[in-house]
This record gives sequence, C-alpha cells and structure tokens, in this order.
Amino acid sequence: MKTIGVVLSGCGVQDGSEIHEAVATLLALSKRGAKAICFAPDDDQARVMDHARGQETLENRNMLTEAARIARGEISPLSSANVEELDGIILPGGFGAALNLSDFASQGNEMTIRPDLETLLGAFADAGKPIAALCIAPPILAKLMQRRGVTGAKVTIGTDAGTAGKISAMGQTHMNASATEVVVDSRHKLVSSPAYMLAGNIAELFAGIDNAVCALLEMA
Amino acid sequence: MKTIGVVLSGCGVQDGSEIHEAVATLLALSKRGAKAICFAPDDDQARVMDHARGQETLENRNMLTEAARIARGEISPLSSANVEELDGIILPGGFGAALNLSDFASQGNEMTIRPDLETLLGAFADAGKPIAALCIAPPILAKLMQRRGVTGAKVTIGTDAGTAGKISAMGQTHMNASATEVVVDSRHKLVSSPAYMLAGNIAELFAGIDNAVCALLEMA
Repeated sequence: MKTIGVVLSGCGVQDGSEIHEAVATLLALSKRGAKAICFAPDDDQARVMDHARGQETLENRNMLTEAARIARGEISPLSSANVEELDGIILPGGFGAALNLSDFASQGNEMTIRPDLETLLGAFADAGKPIAALCIAPPILAKLMQRRGVTGAKVTIGTDAGTAGKISAMGQTHMNASATEVVVDSRHKLVSSPAYMLAGNIAELFAGIDNAVCALLEMA
Repeated sequence: MKTIGVVLSGCGVQDGSEIHEAVATLLALSKRGAKAICFAPDDDQARVMDHARGQETLENRNMLTEAARIARGEISPLSSANVEELDGIILPGGFGAALNLSDFASQGNEMTIRPDLETLLGAFADAGKPIAALCIAPPILAKLMQRRGVTGAKVTIGTDAGTAGKISAMGQTHMNASATEVVVDSRHKLVSSPAYMLAGNIAELFAGIDNAVCALLEMA
C-alpha cells in the first residue's frame, strides 16, 4: 500500500483548502488503495472569510485546527511530515494554497513558499518522489522548480492566461489542460490538474482529481 | 433533471455536517445528473469543537455561515426551502444532525426536531416526495414518522444496538444494514444508510451514499 501525504491549509475555498478538492483527493486515494496522511501548518490562516457573504471577518483561525474538520481529526502538523514515510505528496487547491501555503495571490511570480513546505517539497524532489498540485496550487511547483534552478518544468492551472503567464515568468512551461486532463512532468515527477479552475461541477472535478491521483500513484 | 435539497448544519463531524458525507452526497447527485440545492438553518450551532483536539471551544458559529464552506458559498437559509421546487431531500450526518437539526444526542427517543425542519420534512411527506437521511440523521425520520402517527416505518443507522433501540422506542422498525446497504421504506418514501456509522474508509462511505442517492432519485 502506498502512503500519500495530503497538505491542507484550512477548511474552505475562500480562505483555506477547497473542501470538494480535498475530499475528492481522499476519495480517489482510498478508491485506488492508497493510504492518505493529512498535514497542515500549525499556524494562523492569512484571512478568514464568511463563505455565505463572501466577506472577510475579523476572526483568527488556525490552518491545522480548521483542516482537522476535513480530516475528521486525523491530522498532523506539517512540521512532522517526513519524506521517508511517504511515497508521494499532493496539494489540493483553494485560496489557502495562494494565501497560506504561499503568497502567490498577492506576489504572483515573485511569490515565496512557506519555508517548512518548501523544505519538505524539496526533500521529495531530492528523493525522486512525486508531487501533485491541483487548481491554484501548481504555482508552488513552478516556484519550487525555479528555486532549485530548474527551467521548463511542465505544469498546468488550466487555461487562465494571467496565471499561466506567472508560471512562465518563473521559468516553467505552462501547458493548457481541460478540467479532466492531467499534466505530468515525468522528469521532475510533477503532476498537476486544473480542478475547480475549470471544472463545471463536482462530478467533473472528481474525474480530473482521480486522474491526477492515478498519475501520482503511478510514479510513487 | 431532478432537484434535490441537501440540508446542512455546519461544517465538521463533531459540531456540524460530516464533511465527507456532505461532499459524497453532492458528488453522487452530480454523477447521477441531479441538481443539488444546499440549505442550512441561519442560526447558531449547539457547540463548536476543535476537531484537532476533540475539545469544545468558546466560539459561536452559525450553521449557515459554516455550511457555506461545504457549499462553496451557494447556500440558502433553510427557511427558504420550498417543497414545490424540490423533488426530494437528503440529510447527511455528523453531530450537527443530532445537536443542531434535532436534540437526539441529548434526548434520545424524547428528541425534538427543529420546528422549521419538521415543517419542511412534513411537507415532503404530505407531497409524497422522498426523504433520505445518512449516518446519525435517520432518528429524525423516526421522530417525524412518530409525530405523524406512523408506526413501523423502516430506517437504519447501521448496527448500533443502543441507537437502534431509540428508533424502536419511537415506534419505528430499525433494520440492520452494512455500510454500503440502503434501507428503503417505499410506503413512506424514506431512504437511510449507515454512512460513517459503519464505513471503514471514504471509498466505502461513497459507495453507500451513492446507493442511497440512487434510491432517493428513483422515488423522486
């Protein structure tokens, strides 16, 4: 049985992990016989949103505490994730990927990745173990590759030209893809898929994420 | 296209809607070509739990505001749900079903259903439209039937003898069922399935919920 780390960053599309994407990831891993271990940084979210009204609130919420809702309490601090105990790792989307795990939402191609996450993902790359990213998380792969001196790594966020341009500005190659397609960079062991950047409904979302999980497990 | 109401009660197994069950319900409906409309009471949860530590916190959270995280912002107050616009209705589980939508967790067979929900579900029963309940939500079906003077309606919460006994004490007939089985009471148009009362993993959970959604849509 392969063991895959799932990196969460809160609980909700507007300020943390996109819930459907996270649950679809766990479902696809379970259906394909893999074991999922959920992690999140034990740190405050960048913001908290009222998802019914689309407005920021004055609360503070912790990424780990909120992500534990998605993980049904079975979650560990990101700082405890160990590449030797995992065969691969996957980052669902949601604004948490661009606000909490990185600052892509505000900094674009000048983004930084949370240092603990960058160190962890670097260890996967060093070990030749695969990394998958969904929706708005793939810029993290692009920055990771740039920071490692790689250019031309293939990733997708779907078809959005503005976001694709920022991936190009980090020296990587954006490949357009549909909601159910997956871009695999077998040289750098990267998997990406557009998820809710393009999926029109949750059935289409699941099909794309299931394809991404399949590709991840094939390289794990 | 059939339109199904999904009644949520927060966002998280320990104090609201069980997230995997809610998302699996939305996925099964989408895969089967049905339209889902999410509702939640615009009212405070009975409690708020830190899901990482399993401890109650001092916060107040609103069921509708939190459930909007599961619904990606597309949610309406339960008070706005109209039986004429829906072909069926489904209640995922999580402690919210036994703490927020009813007080089954503390009152057992002496439970009451939230009045607005009882009125809505009664309207479905009056209209001969089907109602489904998952996990720990089926006691709501048992109480609804009791309050309507019905005895012997068939429901399941799996195999837990204590919970099954409370359903019997409400005058209904508990049927043991496995995680992937569904109990259908075609006379009263009720569907129930154990979900995480018994499912050992999320793949098994989805199989059971998909079967329940199939049975619901067949009667809708």
